[in-house]
Amino acid sequence: MQITVLAGGVGGARFVRGLLAHLADSPDPAHRDAEVTVIGNTGDDITLFGLRVCPDLDTVMYTLGGGIHEEQGWGRADESHVVQGELAAYGAQPQWFGLGDRDIATHVARSQLLDLGMPLSQVTAVLCDRWGLPGQGVRLLPMSDDPVETHVVVDDQDGRRAVHFQEWWVRMRAAVPAQQFVAVGIDTATAGPGVLESIRAADVVLLPPSNPVVSIGIILGVPGVRDALRGTRAPVVGVSPIVGGRPVRGHADACLRAIGVETTAGAVAGLYEDFLDGWLVDDTLGTDLGSVRQRAGLTVRSRPLLMTDVPAAAAIAGAALDLAADLQPQRASV
Amino acid sequence: MQITVLAGGVGGARFVRGLLAHLADSPDPAHRDAEVTVIGNTGDDITLFGLRVCPDLDTVMYTLGGGIHEEQGWGRADESHVVQGELAAYGAQPQWFGLGDRDIATHVARSQLLDLGMPLSQVTAVLCDRWGLPGQGVRLLPMSDDPVETHVVVDDQDGRRAVHFQEWWVRMRAAVPAQQFVAVGIDTATAGPGVLESIRAADVVLLPPSNPVVSIGIILGVPGVRDALRGTRAPVVGVSPIVGGRPVRGHADACLRAIGVETTAGAVAGLYEDFLDGWLVDDTLGTDLGSVRQRAGLTVRSRPLLMTDVPAAAAIAGAALDLAADLQPQRASV
Repeated sequence: MQITVLAGGVGGARFVRGLLAHLADSPDPAHRDAEVTVIGNTGDDITLFGLRVCPDLDTVMYTLGGGIHEEQGWGRADESHVVQGELAAYGAQPQWFGLGDRDIATHVARSQLLDLGMPLSQVTAVLCDRWGLPGQGVRLLPMSDDPVETHVVVDDQDGRRAVHFQEWWVRMRAAVPAQQFVAVGIDTATAGPGVLESIRAADVVLLPPSNPVVSIGIILGVPGVRDALRGTRAPVVGVSPIVGGRPVRGHADACLRAIGVETTAGAVAGLYEDFLDGWLVDDTLGTDLGSVRQRAGLTVRSRPLLMTDVPAAAAIAGAALDLAADLQPQRASV
Repeated sequence: MQITVLAGGVGGARFVRGLLAHLADSPDPAHRDAEVTVIGNTGDDITLFGLRVCPDLDTVMYTLGGGIHEEQGWGRADESHVVQGELAAYGAQPQWFGLGDRDIATHVARSQLLDLGMPLSQVTAVLCDRWGLPGQGVRLLPMSDDPVETHVVVDDQDGRRAVHFQEWWVRMRAAVPAQQFVAVGIDTATAGPGVLESIRAADVVLLPPSNPVVSIGIILGVPGVRDALRGTRAPVVGVSPIVGGRPVRGHADACLRAIGVETTAGAVAGLYEDFLDGWLVDDTLGTDLGSVRQRAGLTVRSRPLLMTDVPAAAAIAGAALDLAADLQPQRASV
């Protein structure tokens, strides 16, 4: 069984970890032997101090490999910050992006291989080997080997200008209104090796509760990805990142506002309208189901969607797979 | 007063620190206001994990800036090794060169600036600012902005081949006989900004007890340096790195053997014959003075030369300055 997941950072990583737990515990041998392909967003990538940082790929890798800082959701457990303190002493910029020592080692190893000419997909495979992802039946594929960087147009006391997504997200805490998101380089980017194939050949495609604009939205912008999602015979099932009109985590509301979309489970489903078959919403507050516009070809189910721990995430992933299984005949007949 | 010093790593750094202490304590205002230029060997430089490492420059910088690991002589005090452990977990090579976290930050900061196109001399000035060298009246100048790397021809069970100096020095501990030293890139290297001028305009030129082959010897190989030493009106005074037929520190004996030179204070003075005016030897064991060939224009004095602490190093530097002062009229008349 081939399962393909489009993932951003923390939400995507925790969802995939839950999916793996669900699959490992499944009585179904097809589940236990499932191969999971994670297509990771690289629009968040940034070069800091000459080192290439891929936050979303690393969050997935650290989470699945057991190295994640659990409370924080990103970065490494048992982290120290000696290098960054020294860089600050040298006056190196920027200082608004927190880089721990263990994390920096990942970026040093990655940058060294990239500088040798190895494409990001291969570099990512090398890094994932250390974290045992292949042994868990997981491949982590960057959406593209070509650099794509999400920039944010802001308009504040310093005037209208574009800043790197990370500067908006981390330094400005997404508090300065975003006027527009521009995925620099995406028009000429090529989907990474295996990306389109893994969508086309999948038995199930899953969208975790990742940010619909700056995570999933960026992956969808890679030429060919949206067509592959429309054309695949696999059912495509998503998990709403919005519960009761608020993002479960992160600044998805600020992102949705910038593109003129309401922060509701229904409005997010609308962004995926052309390929989405199943949509899980959390109707605990009684507002989410009602926000979803009824349309032919979309099946909506309500489940608790807070990934409070691994079993909770596993239950959500299981519900997504169940929904996909129920939709299989429908999609296959399209 | 302008004092120019040609320096390698630990020996050069400790000598300059002693020199600064001597100058600061001097009753002579010309000494207290002296400007010290240190010309640093960059032949030891190596790119590790994509980061540019300049061991000799850093040893001088850390020693003068109070950041040195005192017992070790190189690297940073209060050092940790988180990054290197992670790099090893990723399988990154090599692992035989110890890089601490604080030290790595220096290399990250340096590499970032070099990648932006800044020449090594400017990068070094930026790094030295943090360590307060300008405030001590010290400029640290790389011998050249062009990359020069000392390679060592060895012949062991793996056959005859050239390895980077650091691999021979650190991994092989200089125990495999060196057949030859090759300073790759030196023939086309240009002396760094201020290097030749600082020798020509100096009131005194000092050679610390640095390795005569792979530290001082490499600096002397930079086109123009030797001519500047021959032509300067400043007396050139050196401190023997050999005491009683053994190097005070490091593997100078293995280096001298490779170029067919005896490990004696006299034989080392012979390497500097064409420009050396004064030579300090340590005759405690009764063998060093006798090894120095009498020649017109070379004045030899015996002093205790072990730099056991800063006052000891200051006394040696003071003796070198005293000898230079006595030689001043002689050289100026050349």
